[in-house]
Amino acid sequence: MVKVLKEEQDRTGIRLLWGTANLFTHPRFAQGAATGCNADVFAYAAAQVKKAMEVTHELGGAGYTFWGGREGYSTLLNTDMKRELDHLAAFLHMAVDYKKKIGFKGQFYIEPKPKEPTKHQYDSDAAACLNFLREYGLIDHFKLNLETNHATLAGHTMQHELEVAAVAGRLGSIDANTGDTLLGWDTDQFPTDIYLAAQVMLTILKAGGFTTGGLNFDAKVRRESFEPEDLFYAHIGAMDAMARGLKIVAAIRQDGRLADFVKHRYASWDSGIGRTIEGGKAGFKELEAYLLKKGEAQTSSSGRQEFLENLINEFI
Amino acid sequence: MVKVLKEEQDRTGIRLLWGTANLFTHPRFAQGAATGCNADVFAYAAAQVKKAMEVTHELGGAGYTFWGGREGYSTLLNTDMKRELDHLAAFLHMAVDYKKKIGFKGQFYIEPKPKEPTKHQYDSDAAACLNFLREYGLIDHFKLNLETNHATLAGHTMQHELEVAAVAGRLGSIDANTGDTLLGWDTDQFPTDIYLAAQVMLTILKAGGFTTGGLNFDAKVRRESFEPEDLFYAHIGAMDAMARGLKIVAAIRQDGRLADFVKHRYASWDSGIGRTIEGGKAGFKELEAYLLKKGEAQTSSSGRQEFLENLINEFI
Amino acid sequence: MVKVLKEEQDRTGIRLLWGTANLFTHPRFAQGAATGCNADVFAYAAAQVKKAMEVTHELGGAGYTFWGGREGYSTLLNTDMKRELDHLAAFLHMAVDYKKKIGFKGQFYIEPKPKEPTKHQYDSDAAACLNFLREYGLIDHFKLNLETNHATLAGHTMQHELEVAAVAGRLGSIDANTGDTLLGWDTDQFPTDIYLAAQVMLTILKAGGFTTGGLNFDAKVRRESFEPEDLFYAHIGAMDAMARGLKIVAAIRQDGRLADFVKHRYASWDSGIGRTIEGGKAGFKELEAYLLKKGEAQTSSSGRQEFLENLINEFI
Amino acid sequence: MVKVLKEEQDRTGIRLLWGTANLFTHPRFAQGAATGCNADVFAYAAAQVKKAMEVTHELGGAGYTFWGGREGYSTLLNTDMKRELDHLAAFLHMAVDYKKKIGFKGQFYIEPKPKEPTKHQYDSDAAACLNFLREYGLIDHFKLNLETNHATLAGHTMQHELEVAAVAGRLGSIDANTGDTLLGWDTDQFPTDIYLAAQVMLTILKAGGFTTGGLNFDAKVRRESFEPEDLFYAHIGAMDAMARGLKIVAAIRQDGRLADFVKHRYASWDSGIGRTIEGGKAGFKELEAYLLKKGEAQTSSSGRQEFLENLINEFI
Repeated sequence: MVKVLKEEQDRTGIRLLWGTANLFTHPRFAQGAATGCNADVFAYAAAQVKKAMEVTHELGGAGYTFWGGREGYSTLLNTDMKRELDHLAAFLHMAVDYKKKIGFKGQFYIEPKPKEPTKHQYDSDAAACLNFLREYGLIDHFKLNLETNHATLAGHTMQHELEVAAVAGRLGSIDANTGDTLLGWDTDQFPTDIYLAAQVMLTILKAGGFTTGGLNFDAKVRRESFEPEDLFYAHIGAMDAMARGLKIVAAIRQDGRLADFVKHRYASWDSGIGRTIEGGKAGFKELEAYLLKKGEAQTSSSGRQEFLENLINEFI
Repeated sequence: MVKVLKEEQDRTGIRLLWGTANLFTHPRFAQGAATGCNADVFAYAAAQVKKAMEVTHELGGAGYTFWGGREGYSTLLNTDMKRELDHLAAFLHMAVDYKKKIGFKGQFYIEPKPKEPTKHQYDSDAAACLNFLREYGLIDHFKLNLETNHATLAGHTMQHELEVAAVAGRLGSIDANTGDTLLGWDTDQFPTDIYLAAQVMLTILKAGGFTTGGLNFDAKVRRESFEPEDLFYAHIGAMDAMARGLKIVAAIRQDGRLADFVKHRYASWDSGIGRTIEGGKAGFKELEAYLLKKGEAQTSSSGRQEFLENLINEFI
Repeated sequence: MVKVLKEEQDRTGIRLLWGTANLFTHPRFAQGAATGCNADVFAYAAAQVKKAMEVTHELGGAGYTFWGGREGYSTLLNTDMKRELDHLAAFLHMAVDYKKKIGFKGQFYIEPKPKEPTKHQYDSDAAACLNFLREYGLIDHFKLNLETNHATLAGHTMQHELEVAAVAGRLGSIDANTGDTLLGWDTDQFPTDIYLAAQVMLTILKAGGFTTGGLNFDAKVRRESFEPEDLFYAHIGAMDAMARGLKIVAAIRQDGRLADFVKHRYASWDSGIGRTIEGGKAGFKELEAYLLKKGEAQTSSSGRQEFLENLINEFI
Repeated sequence: MVKVLKEEQDRTGIRLLWGTANLFTHPRFAQGAATGCNADVFAYAAAQVKKAMEVTHELGGAGYTFWGGREGYSTLLNTDMKRELDHLAAFLHMAVDYKKKIGFKGQFYIEPKPKEPTKHQYDSDAAACLNFLREYGLIDHFKLNLETNHATLAGHTMQHELEVAAVAGRLGSIDANTGDTLLGWDTDQFPTDIYLAAQVMLTILKAGGFTTGGLNFDAKVRRESFEPEDLFYAHIGAMDAMARGLKIVAAIRQDGRLADFVKHRYASWDSGIGRTIEGGKAGFKELEAYLLKKGEAQTSSSGRQEFLENLINEFI
């Protein structure tokens, strides 16, 4: 199959964003792969990821994505969370080692997802992934591949997840499917909401754009949209929405009012006591003395949420 | 006031579990305290926490709790998340320094809470707190004070949050209020659910019991329960529920079947390939060789969730 | 097949609680059955339900259940809700007519469910079903078959749904599967929560017990519980839980304090102005005169939620 | 006060959309007003609503709105739901009677809301209100006043609630506040989402526009938006959003493709077997005969959700 794929790549010029392996459909993975209760299943998953990494490497993939699948639990009653997390870390360290061994230079991604099919997945959201990666010394080897539907199932906006990843320097790639915040499962819909597209682009451009990764669609048309042309409507509409988001944000950045507002909002940190604090030159004692002398904190300016929402609407 | 409190402590023998400061009610904290946009407000909060720590120390407090309050955001449009998190870390480092300075030996706690009053609080759940503490070199100085209602608002069970804290060695104390999983706000109800009490005690006893902290109630009776005796019904009922949880778990541990089941479930890791993996003596290549020789992973045994739920019911 | 089923019924003495038809799995029903956009599909569903009713009748079924399946919508953009509801009513009237025609005396049930697989199902909860049945003159022909997991997906407790059905005289039968309030899809778990069982039995016994219907399990063991004995653990545990609920409620009713408390709480309605109001002998004018003379309403007594929760715990 | 308000109305030309009374803030209403356990409180609420109706009438109000307030329960353990609903119906019948008595011609509205401050409010969503109004013979006297934030707290989209009201002929007025679908409480934000505005206008225009009522704002600026100009940004932005929604929908209706698509989707009902069914001239037997002859239902056409979402985006 790899040969055929390579020929098609050559013919079309289409490149591979990232490779991955399915460690969740087969019954052997019912209780997890790297975090399963069964060492043989761990070994099976290792062999499978080894192969998938080799294929990804051969196809010139720009990255490799690990996702939760069934890495979590259905009930804590039967679960040794510490041992499962240790195993997951061992698995990912093996992947890092093997990557070096075969000379694969692509970026590793973890895709956070809180639940479904399991009750709880260890990679539940960006912060949980980062915590795990830091604890096990893996933080330098992985970035996050973020998806709107997984963000909202975890109770966060997509932009929140993007910001959390970006401020940690771990914003990697974007899985463009969206969901329905009134539904509690992964609907994997094509994104058409211009606000969502603009929010995504706001953070990506602020973070300097994609340095790795890109936008991938593994969205599905609705069950009622069963005709071939629906695939075109879906992909075109979603790409158009993302493109509009990009153009909107380019215009917002050109306009400058949004960034200026945020910069100005934190102005008290650029001089005086704020600068002293940021410079690490004050402790509780100095701040108490400062405040007792002043009597009361200077009033903050308004957060202006309504104004800022209107500003966004100007560009939509 | 401190003098009066000390006299009452002497008179009654009641000790102080932990102290804290209110950095969220006053309008000056509308946009946060340590994570606010205003350096003066940070200084005010610092002065207030300094005082609260001194008072806690003087009253012989066994700990000091920081909680989210308004440390988060209402809209990402006006928020510089990185700068706010840096400020929060600076604030907590100042607290650590001041603790040493005054010789306060009590445990520091952070109490995770995902939202309310803000849209999103940085200490959103156990994993988010641990990630933050690791990133900023604070992990050794803080443990978590966990509350059921905050856990469920973050989409987790209380036992999940306890396990996450415990496996990280950061299980500190318990705020006993519970909530209503069908309501989206912090109802701060008295806990009366025996299952919840048993789940809490399962993890606490497995983790070796409270080495710091304890159970605190800052629950409120319902608005309709406005008579003085309601306070008695509420506290007595909640303490009884926790006591029943403790006795149930003691019996379950005495019985041994639950722990045995979990131990046995992971038996494949105690010898053979599992032991090799845990010992760090295998990589992807060795595991592939192992599996190719074997052909298919050994079948896992059933997760037995229904059996385990029945087992718990035996003790209720 | 009917012949075989009858023989098995004769052999075992097991009777049929209710029959039903699957109008949601086959692709022809992707856009609904009775509420689909396609009249042919309506006709197909009619033929299928006709057959299922005949078979149910032949097997001595005590009822017939209609459930949402895909009777709803994925997007309002393509949906004529009025026309779809009119069609659903026409379908159910045909079922009522056909029931008479074949002399089937069993009870008709509707099983409320808010969503999944569709975004929104017309039979979303007990109140939505009752509203529909009243609007279309069907209320006397249908009762509700209620399921915990569907109740919680609609944002209600199971006891709420039971009470809504009971006060409307439409409490019919119970689908015993439960769910997980932190998960947003239909997990169809076996019920093992004693509180849930007690709440269910509280309302059923208060409503006079089952006059039609009963408890049915269409719950599924978890994917990790794949061994034959798991089916036994699951069914036995769930039946035991329901039996314990029944015994608990029998004891609570014997004890009498709970019912007495509720009766006493509304005592002001049994005499004086309350009785006058309930008797329909007062209007706004009379009540204003009454109140102006009195000056302020008599204070209500406490709602005693904490006391009542403790009382339930006494019996658990 | 009424005199002053009238003078201001004369001076400004501003008219009164609807009046209402606050039956939830004062402690006397802690356990409900019309549905409270205390007959005196019912009488107090009656006197208060009587006065509010008189004032509304005097000020030329175009309507009067009843809302849930605390008409619900905190726990079913202490609640006699049937008796409470009977009282609510009695209360509303008194209001209908008094309206006639004083010659008030304005429209009565009920505003659905599922919860907060109570655990469950009887007017939980549009369907629950309609069911109640039908059961107690009040349906002809009330329309619904719908709010986005209440819709989403009940698990519905605003457009769903509007459609449910519209198809029942009970779409009355709109409370324009919106919420945050990732937050579980009533945030009462100003609406700025153009999609929401367009969805609202789609249903309103399809239903023939406002025949009673209108758009009211009882939204609140965020706590961080404490400066006077924030009120202007908020109101202007929200009115602009609604105006854009109206213009978008006017253009969509002018374009015609959306309505044509929906009409065509149900075309099978306009002739042949569909027409026969809608005409009430077929039962299960005839439909079975029709289908057996045909063999399989004619394939439906695609639901085209992605195409329709793109179409909306064309106009945004």
